[in-house]
Amino acid sequence: MASAPKSEYRLRRRVQFHEVDSAGIVHFSWFFRYMEEAEHALWREAGLSIAPPGAEVAFPRVSTSFDFRSPLRFEEEFDVRIRIAAISGKSIRYVCDVIRGDVLIAAATMTVTCVRREPGDVLKATAIPADIAARFAVAPGLDAEA
Amino acid sequence: MASAPKSEYRLRRRVQFHEVDSAGIVHFSWFFRYMEEAEHALWREAGLSIAPPGAEVAFPRVSTSFDFRSPLRFEEEFDVRIRIAAISGKSIRYVCDVIRGDVLIAAATMTVTCVRREPGDVLKATAIPADIAARFAVAPGLDAEA
Amino acid sequence: MASAPKSEYRLRRRVQFHEVDSAGIVHFSWFFRYMEEAEHALWREAGLSIAPPGAEVAFPRVSTSFDFRSPLRFEEEFDVRIRIAAISGKSIRYVCDVIRGDVLIAAATMTVTCVRREPGDVLKATAIPADIAARFAVAPGLDAEA
Amino acid sequence: MASAPKSEYRLRRRVQFHEVDSAGIVHFSWFFRYMEEAEHALWREAGLSIAPPGAEVAFPRVSTSFDFRSPLRFEEEFDVRIRIAAISGKSIRYVCDVIRGDVLIAAATMTVTCVRREPGDVLKATAIPADIAARFAVAPGLDAEA
Repeated sequence: MASAPKSEYRLRRRVQFHEVDSAGIVHFSWFFRYMEEAEHALWREAGLSIAPPGAEVAFPRVSTSFDFRSPLRFEEEFDVRIRIAAISGKSIRYVCDVIRGDVLIAAATMTVTCVRREPGDVLKATAIPADIAARFAVAPGLDAEA
Repeated sequence: MASAPKSEYRLRRRVQFHEVDSAGIVHFSWFFRYMEEAEHALWREAGLSIAPPGAEVAFPRVSTSFDFRSPLRFEEEFDVRIRIAAISGKSIRYVCDVIRGDVLIAAATMTVTCVRREPGDVLKATAIPADIAARFAVAPGLDAEA
Repeated sequence: MASAPKSEYRLRRRVQFHEVDSAGIVHFSWFFRYMEEAEHALWREAGLSIAPPGAEVAFPRVSTSFDFRSPLRFEEEFDVRIRIAAISGKSIRYVCDVIRGDVLIAAATMTVTCVRREPGDVLKATAIPADIAARFAVAPGLDAEA
Repeated sequence: MASAPKSEYRLRRRVQFHEVDSAGIVHFSWFFRYMEEAEHALWREAGLSIAPPGAEVAFPRVSTSFDFRSPLRFEEEFDVRIRIAAISGKSIRYVCDVIRGDVLIAAATMTVTCVRREPGDVLKATAIPADIAARFAVAPGLDAEA
């Protein structure tokens, strides 16, 4: 609990058969799931769940992008490195690289916003609770570009 | 509202690119989603949603099987025919065929049970509400084999 | 075959149960699949398949982005409107809106590049074949911003 | 290479956010992917890939079933234990349990058949190559029930 705030996580992953399309490469929609798996692992590393039972806030994605440089194939092992590029009052911005060995496979950005569920099932942006914000920090070298 | 109970639905569907695996055929996990899409369309045909906002009951799957006879490929059009084989107090049993033209692609069974959410997030089997059960009937010819 | 080149397609779609996450909204990874479904429908409208059997070229995605404005929920109907924003020698750039009634749900961009499979399973960028390029045109009003 | 034939694999896995549906439990279609992930890990343990580049044979699924006993939720860790129940000339039959701690979550069967791709893109059942069959054995205690 007194551990340092977290700003980065590196997830080791293997390509599964059902993630590969008929061209023999990972379907591009899967990269967004890889990034999210790494994000949730970062939260666990920080002692948190991004969606615990009975949560009062949630963190829907508001924007995301991916550039694809090189294909990934069945059973290849790769790393998903996610880093916090910015934390504002209501949002967190991540940057993410997917790497196989020393080959850059893809690079991404993703911004999530803290919301509270209001009557009528409306999602309203709200400040990230202090006990959550305290567990994260911007990754070294990324504070300037945020 | 006074329409006859429903016992069957035929869903016309086209194979999407992201559903096809590296062998060039629909990945087997997708057939379970095709069947479920047809089931939910049957419920809509009966004037119901299987998961409306604020629902007091839900219908988790308790068993399912699929036999695969012939492959499905990208952009092929096919039909998913789902029929009610049995309705007991707490469960509904479906049978389902996937057909392309006059070729049988696959055949399935699926049983779902009505549950109520109890304290501690426990799912407890409960009688299908009467206003739901009244909207469905066993398909002709299937009552004997149920 | 002598029909005019295509530059836009509007796909009508309904949210399926398996596309919705535990927050009750469509998981963000699905929007990329919705966009791709509309792209492939645009190609069919142009008399083409983006991945026909024995194809000599393929069109992997090289970059994509999505901004999410409003959530989509189970069984809602929505439209995916994809338009061609640019066609260069080797690439096609699309823009895409997801709309429910008159509510903008999300907006996207996607660039795909034509590749040829070379020995060693290498994908090499190549000119879009003339008979494919001739079937498409930049959408009115988008040529300036391309 | 001279290691003993393999008959079982236990895969440790964590539930990912995108696998959970709006009822807060893993969508049933995912269990078939969990089982397949374990199957492919079993093949790797046996020194094989089930779908290597340039493979002359493939192993499409011909039938499968799942019984669901207890729900799985976001971030829970669980084991997928797959065992070989039978190896015939052309087919392999697996049984599979999904377990969280000492709770049985679900139990499955799956049969796959060895096929060769023939002209016209036809898949024809063929004998499992000897060098593949030699790497596997029926799991102890399952030979009687096969």
